[in-house]
Amino acid sequence: MIRGIHHIGVAVENLDRARALYVEKLGLREGTRDEVPEQMVRVLVVYAGETRIELLEPTSPESPIAKFLAKRGPGVHHIAYHVDDVGAGLATLGQRGLQLIDSAPRDGAHHTRVGFVHPKSTEGVLTELVQDLH
Amino acid sequence: MIRGIHHIGVAVENLDRARALYVEKLGLREGTRDEVPEQMVRVLVVYAGETRIELLEPTSPESPIAKFLAKRGPGVHHIAYHVDDVGAGLATLGQRGLQLIDSAPRDGAHHTRVGFVHPKSTEGVLTELVQDLH
Repeated sequence: MIRGIHHIGVAVENLDRARALYVEKLGLREGTRDEVPEQMVRVLVVYAGETRIELLEPTSPESPIAKFLAKRGPGVHHIAYHVDDVGAGLATLGQRGLQLIDSAPRDGAHHTRVGFVHPKSTEGVLTELVQDLH
Repeated sequence: MIRGIHHIGVAVENLDRARALYVEKLGLREGTRDEVPEQMVRVLVVYAGETRIELLEPTSPESPIAKFLAKRGPGVHHIAYHVDDVGAGLATLGQRGLQLIDSAPRDGAHHTRVGFVHPKSTEGVLTELVQDLH
């Protein structure tokens, strides 16, 4: 079902400071910058080789990322896995006893369909399934 | 300098329970199991496509992983990047102002040389450089 890592989501307080770290100091390749109003975040994509890292800065105190930062500080927020069919993936994981945040796929950023699994049932790691739409 | 992600390190309370999640429920490919006495951890490697995830269970309350679990609970512990030369990588990052945990490379698990950068200077993400020895 899981084909690989789709991206690693990292919560940051300030996207420009995170860009200075990831692009200028670590030397990762800079990708697109985007805003996802539904999640109340700005996103800067960087690449380590083929692996996509999404740097996520909240645009509102109500953003899930703002709440994560307030509770835990900056750090890795979620791991997203690449699947062919998010709906089928969520159904399978639900049948296997995982607690789903999304019982059905919803639209994600960058032409994707996504669904989240609750970290309570994934040993503390917020887990996302992502399907690319073509 | 950075060629890609070497692995994602995940702190878990119990390796068997983590195996049940990652291998049996998420369906990731199971790799080797190992013990790293210097870090006081047991490691189970799983693969999401080509990406290596290291599940880390402490073997002692003195383990850095035990301290992480006590402070933050289970979750992503570090991101490790694949480099050709850890010594050169650490030197470069130090020159760029990052705070190094290891000023020089040391032996890691699975025939590697490794060095860590302090999360204080990497926006909260404990960051490792890994060089494979052949």
